[in-house]
Amino acid sequence: MNYFARKKIKNILADQIEQYNDIIVMGWVRTKRVSKNIAFIEINDGSCLKNLQLVILEPEEFPLAEINTGSSIKVTGYIDKVEGREQSVEMKVEQLEIIGEAPADYLLQKKRHSFEFLREIAHLRPRTNTFGVINRFRSKMSYAVHDYFYKNDFKYIHTPIITAGDAEGAGEVFKVSTLDFKNLPQNDQGAIDYTQDFFGEETGLTVSGQLEAELMATALGDVYTFGPTFRAENSNTSRHASEFWMIEPEMAFCDLTEMMTLMEDFIKNLFNFALQQSPEEMEFFNKWIDKGRQQIIADIVEADFGRITYTEAVDILEKSKADFEYPVSWGIDLQSEHERFLTEEYFKKPVMVTDYPKEIKAFYMRMNQDQKTVAAVDCLVPGVGEIIGGSQREERYDVLKARMEELEMDLEKYQWFLDIRKYGSVPHSGFGLGFERLLMYLSGMQNIRDVIAFPRTPGSAKF
Amino acid sequence: MNYFARKKIKNILADQIEQYNDIIVMGWVRTKRVSKNIAFIEINDGSCLKNLQLVILEPEEFPLAEINTGSSIKVTGYIDKVEGREQSVEMKVEQLEIIGEAPADYLLQKKRHSFEFLREIAHLRPRTNTFGVINRFRSKMSYAVHDYFYKNDFKYIHTPIITAGDAEGAGEVFKVSTLDFKNLPQNDQGAIDYTQDFFGEETGLTVSGQLEAELMATALGDVYTFGPTFRAENSNTSRHASEFWMIEPEMAFCDLTEMMTLMEDFIKNLFNFALQQSPEEMEFFNKWIDKGRQQIIADIVEADFGRITYTEAVDILEKSKADFEYPVSWGIDLQSEHERFLTEEYFKKPVMVTDYPKEIKAFYMRMNQDQKTVAAVDCLVPGVGEIIGGSQREERYDVLKARMEELEMDLEKYQWFLDIRKYGSVPHSGFGLGFERLLMYLSGMQNIRDVIAFPRTPGSAKF
Repeated sequence: MNYFARKKIKNILADQIEQYNDIIVMGWVRTKRVSKNIAFIEINDGSCLKNLQLVILEPEEFPLAEINTGSSIKVTGYIDKVEGREQSVEMKVEQLEIIGEAPADYLLQKKRHSFEFLREIAHLRPRTNTFGVINRFRSKMSYAVHDYFYKNDFKYIHTPIITAGDAEGAGEVFKVSTLDFKNLPQNDQGAIDYTQDFFGEETGLTVSGQLEAELMATALGDVYTFGPTFRAENSNTSRHASEFWMIEPEMAFCDLTEMMTLMEDFIKNLFNFALQQSPEEMEFFNKWIDKGRQQIIADIVEADFGRITYTEAVDILEKSKADFEYPVSWGIDLQSEHERFLTEEYFKKPVMVTDYPKEIKAFYMRMNQDQKTVAAVDCLVPGVGEIIGGSQREERYDVLKARMEELEMDLEKYQWFLDIRKYGSVPHSGFGLGFERLLMYLSGMQNIRDVIAFPRTPGSAKF
Repeated sequence: MNYFARKKIKNILADQIEQYNDIIVMGWVRTKRVSKNIAFIEINDGSCLKNLQLVILEPEEFPLAEINTGSSIKVTGYIDKVEGREQSVEMKVEQLEIIGEAPADYLLQKKRHSFEFLREIAHLRPRTNTFGVINRFRSKMSYAVHDYFYKNDFKYIHTPIITAGDAEGAGEVFKVSTLDFKNLPQNDQGAIDYTQDFFGEETGLTVSGQLEAELMATALGDVYTFGPTFRAENSNTSRHASEFWMIEPEMAFCDLTEMMTLMEDFIKNLFNFALQQSPEEMEFFNKWIDKGRQQIIADIVEADFGRITYTEAVDILEKSKADFEYPVSWGIDLQSEHERFLTEEYFKKPVMVTDYPKEIKAFYMRMNQDQKTVAAVDCLVPGVGEIIGGSQREERYDVLKARMEELEMDLEKYQWFLDIRKYGSVPHSGFGLGFERLLMYLSGMQNIRDVIAFPRTPGSAKF
């Protein structure tokens, strides 16, 4: 529907307008060239990467001197199609109005800025070419996720952000409280009395929606989460953020093998969506961020993913003559160098590795018959290694309870999680994909801070 | 794509399968009737409200005695179409396997349970008819939101959950910290030294993504948020939760009038989606939750929303002979009884009220020429009153700064918010819709705790 008087530049350039005269366009000035008899201004309105070229035939009639890079203007005029040029559409300006000036101290002058610098001015960086592209891409890929699951009849669930469980082993938790820190209530034992806190117990920010997703899957069938999760780890790497978005599908009546088929289909669909539905952004990444990225993604869409067990993988790694920093033996957690060897050197395509030693995987993964490995799967892709991890879940009440006792977990906290195994338990499986990791992989961007509009990292929550 | 060996009951009942023999179905037993020569079992797999009827012709061959309400089973057999009956499809069972038993202490036996009771067992309630319907409906309406904005070329943005700003006036904030509460660091002034906290300053959970959405709109054009927001208010009402999902579109180059057109179109599209794309759920609500609900929703889809100023509204209310609990005069915040009079009695359809006194609205709303009112709008609907609130935002740097100083706000914290007015400022507008309020309105559900899978309210974060 057309709510707006103005036309979007994206639609004008794609010739998706019905009208060519008395067009109103609003946007921000990117460049200005003024000569005696003609002036050119390129403006951008955020709807796409490309600018619209404005042509002004009587420059002296317009307040061009007051227009700087970053100024916002409103123009009225008509659209002219120019045959045989790259910029085939331009707009002849009849009226021009300055909406907002951009004083000379505007930091985004026309030149290239480093990503490090732009992080310092995160409130302005969405106005740059690169971060405009990234933010539009993030939006499109979010839609791709929802659209894939909707069309495959998964139910989207909102798992809680504030939680009293501690999701064993997933990571450090941010505490959430309304207590007066300067005057904390104490109980009889001299400990902090959390019964007086907002929720009547100690609470924190979720590290994963998986356990709740399992609960929902064992009622609704196929579900997925797509929401923020949190890790309070003090790790300042280019791949970790304290707040990030996770996609966690969980399927009832689904074993590991079926899930692997889904996982492969899901990745290929998302990658294909990027190539087909987001070509402007993918071409930008391919040209400016990582040459060859489009081909890498296209190859994965066409590949038959390999399938191999952890034990086979260790065997391959041990027999290889590769010079690994971390030595390989059965039982180790595979390092990035090992994963990359498997997918880049050995398979030369994505590979799904299954059946890991139980000691290096989470308590809820289903024990295999050998009693040594669990029905886990990691999907490895060239360039980074693991991009998705998942497992069939332990649905056998007694087996799960024994494992939790072995790990000395607080069974009372997980009573509801055990209950869903006690009553009408079913085989079920699920996996997790970090949304920012997906975006980094598709775009070739190297720092997680640059694929989130407002990154949270240790010491940084400014914007 | 078909990843799964099993067939979903939804697809079988809708005759969306290619195969009728050697069908595998898995699900949870809802009812069982056994006689000497025949047995009937109804199972549900979460894919839809309706059960699939299983027919067992030689009951003594199967372990029927061990099957209870809530057990999960796997059956193989063939689909039989029965003409001229309401339940026109049934499945003849050839093999049956019990996957998970349901001991006699299973709380969801076949009878009606009160919503209050079901809240106590929130980990099991998604398995009931009502909460299966609600969770599927929530999922569909989430998709409706994303689909509407995607097709209208809005960009979905993830605004931060952890924030250092305090979003003046929006409500009480949950504190987020990793400090050791028992051993809090102090600064020279004897106050808590938040520079030692995880983010180097005091942080809390967001109460709204609006300010960040404004920032993104003034770079990307049309954007929206759809994510969790938080209020630490100790209010135990049926309409307030401490964690809820908000939808907040924000449009650059858009004035109040254009936004009102968008707002009306948005509501009508969502309501129409519910009726057209979610008929099973809407019929359920209409039958079991609130008779007549479908017609109320259909009427709104067809209505031309009224438009009126606050001043006109006060005039209408003052001239009415209605017996209000709260007396009406220019300057008051309209109460629910006033809003409902306007939409139910006077207009008999939704009405958008604009231009409220500045004193009862937020600091960021655009001052009107009269210097007394701001360019705000509330959309009122029959039955509840306000369902959406929005405004044109103050884009004039000097005017906004003066207003913030008048309200004694901390300008330093909002420097970035002022900056986007300083450089290439543009007119922009936005509104907010609480997703749970939308679901309650469409379904007729009366308690917000019953439209969120894992509600957070004072004293309650158990599941």
